[in-house]
Amino acid sequence: MNSTIETILNHRSIRSFEDTPLEDKTIRTLIESAQQASTSSYMMAYSIIGVTDENKKQALQEISGHPHVTNNGHLFIMCADYRRITYGMDEEVRDDVEKNLENTEHLMTAAIDAALAAQNMAIAAESMGLGMCYLGSLRNDITKTDEILNLPGHVAPLFGIAVGVPAEQPEKKPRLPMEAVYFENEYKEHKDIIEEFNQNISDYYASRSSNQRRDTWTLQMQRRFKKPVRMDVTDFLKSKGFNKR
Amino acid sequence: MNSTIETILNHRSIRSFEDTPLEDKTIRTLIESAQQASTSSYMMAYSIIGVTDENKKQALQEISGHPHVTNNGHLFIMCADYRRITYGMDEEVRDDVEKNLENTEHLMTAAIDAALAAQNMAIAAESMGLGMCYLGSLRNDITKTDEILNLPGHVAPLFGIAVGVPAEQPEKKPRLPMEAVYFENEYKEHKDIIEEFNQNISDYYASRSSNQRRDTWTLQMQRRFKKPVRMDVTDFLKSKGFNKR
Repeated sequence: MNSTIETILNHRSIRSFEDTPLEDKTIRTLIESAQQASTSSYMMAYSIIGVTDENKKQALQEISGHPHVTNNGHLFIMCADYRRITYGMDEEVRDDVEKNLENTEHLMTAAIDAALAAQNMAIAAESMGLGMCYLGSLRNDITKTDEILNLPGHVAPLFGIAVGVPAEQPEKKPRLPMEAVYFENEYKEHKDIIEEFNQNISDYYASRSSNQRRDTWTLQMQRRFKKPVRMDVTDFLKSKGFNKR
Repeated sequence: MNSTIETILNHRSIRSFEDTPLEDKTIRTLIESAQQASTSSYMMAYSIIGVTDENKKQALQEISGHPHVTNNGHLFIMCADYRRITYGMDEEVRDDVEKNLENTEHLMTAAIDAALAAQNMAIAAESMGLGMCYLGSLRNDITKTDEILNLPGHVAPLFGIAVGVPAEQPEKKPRLPMEAVYFENEYKEHKDIIEEFNQNISDYYASRSSNQRRDTWTLQMQRRFKKPVRMDVTDFLKSKGFNKR
C-alpha cells in the first residue's frame, strides 16, 4: 500500500483544531490541488471562498452550530458557480444560456465538480498531517450563508471545509460493508447486510471510548429523515437560477 | 511537496487504456478508498456498480459515445442511493421518510457524497500508476443507463469512472487562474481574469501537440450552454423519488 492510499484509508473527520492558522503557501497548495480535479466538460463550475473575517466566521458558526466553524486553521466554502460562464458571452445567446442553466442537470454537475475539487483539497490537507471536516450544516440557513458571502446569481453555497492542525484523534468510523455499496453489473437488494451492519454498529457505539450509546444505523437515518429538513434549499436554489426546470 | 500532492497535481484524464483488466484486489482497494471519504451525516448515500458484462458495457458506450466506456481496465458507475436507508424502517414513519427524501437538499447531498467517494477512488487509482476518466456522458440517456443497471427507486445513476493502465499521456489541461476561483470573505467579480484566461487558452489550443484549434473558454461554454441538454434528467430524477419538491 502506498502512502497516498494510507492517507485516504486513514481519514477521520477532525472537529477540534489547534489555534494555528494555515500559512498562505499551504492555502495555495490546497486550492491548486482542488483545481486539478477533473471537471465536467471543462466547466470548472465552482468557486471557493476562504473566510478569515471574524464576524463572518461567527455568523456562519451560528448557522452551523459547530464550534469548528470558527476554531480552525482555515475555513473554505465551496460554491456552485456558473456566473463566470456568462462573462463576455454574446448578447444574442445570453437569454438562452441563462435559461438552459436552470436544468437540474447543471445543478448536479456543479455540485459534483465542487465535491471532486473539495476531496482533492481534503486528501492534500491530510497528506500534510492536517485534519479537516466538511460542513453541510452551512445549509441550515443557506440564504443567510449566501448573504454573508455576498454571492451573486448563478452562484450558491454548497458546503464548508474546516482545515487545521488536529487537536484530537478520533477513532475511525465504520463504513458499510463493501458488499452493501458495490455490486457487479446491476443493483442487488441487500437488506440482510444492513441488518448485520446495524448489529455491528450497535456494538461499536456501545463500546467506543467516548459518547457510548445504544443505536443502529437505520435508527439514525430514521431520526434524520422522519422530519423535513432544509426545505428552503429548493426555493433558494431556484432564486439563484438553479434547478428551475 | 509530498507524493500525494504530486499525484493530485499530476492529474490528467485518460481516455485510452491498455487491454489489461484491473485485478480484484486493486478493485477492492479502490472501493475501500472510495468508502473512506467523508459522508454527510453518515448517510453513505451512494452505491457503485462495477460493469463487467460486455453487452451492458456496449449499451453504455452507445449512450456515452466514448470508446473508453468499453475499452478500460474496469468501469465503475456512481449512483445516488437512499434505498438502503428505508430497509427495516418502522412502518409508521416510512411515508414521511420517503416524502422527506424528495427535497432537493437530499439530491445534492447524495451527489456530493458520491463525488467525494469517487475522487478518493480517482486519487487512489492514480497513486498506483493507473489512469481514469469520469463519464458524465452516461447522463446522455439517464433513463437507459438506469435500466441497464436495474436500479430501483431512490437509486439513480450519476456518472461513470473508467479506470485502467494508461495508453496515452496527454498534456495537462490548464485550469482557471487561482484568482478566478478563490476569493477571500466574499465573492468578487472577475471578468478581467476570464478575459486574460481566454487569451491564454487560445494560445494553448493553437500550440498544443494535437487537436490544434482556435478557441476560447467562453466560446466553449457558450457552445455548450446555448442549446438545452439533458432536459430529461429533471423528470427522470423525479420519477426515482428525487428532487420532487
